[in-house]
Amino acid sequence: MIIGGGFGGLAAAKVLRHEPVRVTLLDRHNYHLFQPLLYQVATATLSPGDIASPIRWIFRHAPNVRVLLAEAESIDVAGRQVRLKEAKAAAPIGYDYLIVATGSSHSYFGHNEWARYAPGLKTLEDALEIRRRILLAFERAERESDAARRQELLTFVLIGGGPTGVELAGTLAEIARQTLRDEFRSIDPRQARVVLIEAGDTILPSFPAKLHDAARASLARLGVEVREQTKVTAVDEHGVLIAGEPAKARPLEERIVAGTVLWAAGVTASPLVRSLGVPLDPMGRARVEPDLSIPGHPDVFVVGDAAVFLQPGRGAARDGTPLPGVAQVAIQQAAHAARMIANRVRRTLAPPHSRTVAPPSTPFLFRDKGSMAIVGRRSALADLGWIAFSGTLAWLAWLFLHIFMLIGFRNRLVVLLQWGVAYFTYQRSVRLITNIDRSDRS
Amino acid sequence: MIIGGGFGGLAAAKVLRHEPVRVTLLDRHNYHLFQPLLYQVATATLSPGDIASPIRWIFRHAPNVRVLLAEAESIDVAGRQVRLKEAKAAAPIGYDYLIVATGSSHSYFGHNEWARYAPGLKTLEDALEIRRRILLAFERAERESDAARRQELLTFVLIGGGPTGVELAGTLAEIARQTLRDEFRSIDPRQARVVLIEAGDTILPSFPAKLHDAARASLARLGVEVREQTKVTAVDEHGVLIAGEPAKARPLEERIVAGTVLWAAGVTASPLVRSLGVPLDPMGRARVEPDLSIPGHPDVFVVGDAAVFLQPGRGAARDGTPLPGVAQVAIQQAAHAARMIANRVRRTLAPPHSRTVAPPSTPFLFRDKGSMAIVGRRSALADLGWIAFSGTLAWLAWLFLHIFMLIGFRNRLVVLLQWGVAYFTYQRSVRLITNIDRSDRS
Repeated sequence: MIIGGGFGGLAAAKVLRHEPVRVTLLDRHNYHLFQPLLYQVATATLSPGDIASPIRWIFRHAPNVRVLLAEAESIDVAGRQVRLKEAKAAAPIGYDYLIVATGSSHSYFGHNEWARYAPGLKTLEDALEIRRRILLAFERAERESDAARRQELLTFVLIGGGPTGVELAGTLAEIARQTLRDEFRSIDPRQARVVLIEAGDTILPSFPAKLHDAARASLARLGVEVREQTKVTAVDEHGVLIAGEPAKARPLEERIVAGTVLWAAGVTASPLVRSLGVPLDPMGRARVEPDLSIPGHPDVFVVGDAAVFLQPGRGAARDGTPLPGVAQVAIQQAAHAARMIANRVRRTLAPPHSRTVAPPSTPFLFRDKGSMAIVGRRSALADLGWIAFSGTLAWLAWLFLHIFMLIGFRNRLVVLLQWGVAYFTYQRSVRLITNIDRSDRS
Repeated sequence: MIIGGGFGGLAAAKVLRHEPVRVTLLDRHNYHLFQPLLYQVATATLSPGDIASPIRWIFRHAPNVRVLLAEAESIDVAGRQVRLKEAKAAAPIGYDYLIVATGSSHSYFGHNEWARYAPGLKTLEDALEIRRRILLAFERAERESDAARRQELLTFVLIGGGPTGVELAGTLAEIARQTLRDEFRSIDPRQARVVLIEAGDTILPSFPAKLHDAARASLARLGVEVREQTKVTAVDEHGVLIAGEPAKARPLEERIVAGTVLWAAGVTASPLVRSLGVPLDPMGRARVEPDLSIPGHPDVFVVGDAAVFLQPGRGAARDGTPLPGVAQVAIQQAAHAARMIANRVRRTLAPPHSRTVAPPSTPFLFRDKGSMAIVGRRSALADLGWIAFSGTLAWLAWLFLHIFMLIGFRNRLVVLLQWGVAYFTYQRSVRLITNIDRSDRS
């Protein structure tokens, strides 16, 4: 049984579809979401359907994979079964082996009341809500007669300087300066203010130091204000309160009045992990064994964002820090767990003392293939470990990699086409405000 | 002032953008919707963004057109102003000339309680709700152990045999028989039952009689049950009650147990029309003068689905029956109203007794360019007045016409690409269930 149809769950099922096992793949949604491009849905470049593929369709030719649209409520590791969240009572589903790949959601660091003012970006619904807020801000500004209120509506604050915050900030600035510039009669969208706030020393901290200046320069060219070493101390419907930047001799507390605040700062593991009854780290992630199983239950594996894995040993990538919450880690871990399950099933089927069977447990070893982040038009960062570079070349590499990784021929073609049109016309054509209601137009 | 950014409103603004006038174009949404392809969003072939274009973007190069995202509450024809639906009080907007192009919504013939069981298809939100119901029906059937309940979930009833009902029925049958056939493990989607119910004598009554058999044969080939001369007498959460078909010696009342019921039967004009204080027809449409203005107010025009226009005179298209509620009528009427406004404005600017000015009022004359309807793969009907035909040729004509009429180069390319992929792979790739909640998965 696999819980979660993200990068991890899919990778595990793809290994197991060729093995003599029956797989049940459970997900809350009927689609797999290509999260690295989710910010492009939030910024009206792509449609939801362009980055999502029905999980059933992915496994249509794998008769041993059964896909179930359902949400897991809790895991009973002793009884080897998973209970589902149901309106009517349904029997729990038993398993022989379990892979938990349920990912993460936002964390507001104990300030859950900020969530309504500063939505985060994890699901398609999140993306549509952010798209709606961004587009409505300009619409409302066009109708606003009060100058101060108009500037508030045209101010956008992004909290969190990781890849998602940088991508959103860069794209927002492009929308204001290029996409919308001819379309309004009362406001000039180019006067929009985009502020990116990062609590740590630098934006994109996981990238090599030499790329930070390139990223800052790109954002500055786009007109994004970057505030590093700045902590957000409050979020409400009229903006944020920030503290800090002592190194830059800024005032201790400052208010940024903003109509739109977006959250790209913290994550926490899915709550299902708690029901495993194993030690968790402060972000709610399961502390797993070197083979990714949980202590005491070698038949249960936790992978990706739901687990915290300390790479043992030596060398740059093995310094004892936790592996980052990226697709690459989830995919490699899930495939590792699936291969171990396959090995064990094969052992039970092989003749005794056969020499060809694999060992029942092998430690996981992460192979870092590098990382990338995009800032804007013809601007990206790439860190491949042995080389780090930025600019047009990194941007092209980012484009090709993401097109290549998308699932489905149709999605690749459509995304390529949308990008081509967006690049040459500066247009972002999925600018729809859906589920609009009366209060939105006021 | 133009109220409504549909086919009519857009056509009027396109005429007036070149005239010495200032135009305010009001719409409840920030996009123009290409309604003829809305059923393809409901059936997961296209994304909402493919058939919608931001109204601002359409008029970005027309500085005399101001686009406002707002909903009109009422029209004060005596005071020449329009009041907006607002959370906070906003001043009414005055006008010199007004074009009302607010279209229509569903009518359940006095049974508004049916709406929740049988949604109709008018807005993007409607389309996403229908898509969600269709996809969830198959997901629930896959998890259902009771055979009778499973068959209920796999039964789809379409009420109304006009173009929308026929398009939805044909596409639904294709989805069940082609798109989904390999994807489920407990059910066979090909066992889905699709029933199309029409109260009148025939489906597609607006088409010539010789095309009806072709349409029926196409639907039969797809596996759609067509029930003509059949009235729906009740709709509830478990299906519909039907009466009639005495000519076919069916029982007088019959229950069709169905998990999904969709409404494509009746329409009513937008409620804003009532505030004009002019005579309405039973469908709530304003009875307009031959020049499309309303009685007593030559500066107010009502066009498209919001008006009922009896074509005077002689000949097949001028038999005194009301013009149909199609895009063609709305576009021609709106352009006519806009040209009359332009003529009157030009009269006021021209020297007195100038011979070059147009008359202040001319009667509207509809020029029927023909009509088309699509049934399914390589099957459509075309009636051009002087010739009527069906089959692959009509289907190709339908495809080209609709691609050609779409607004925006990007939309045309993307839709062409989506159709190409759908045709060759039988896939409908926008199969996302969004805004899913706990009760949906039970």
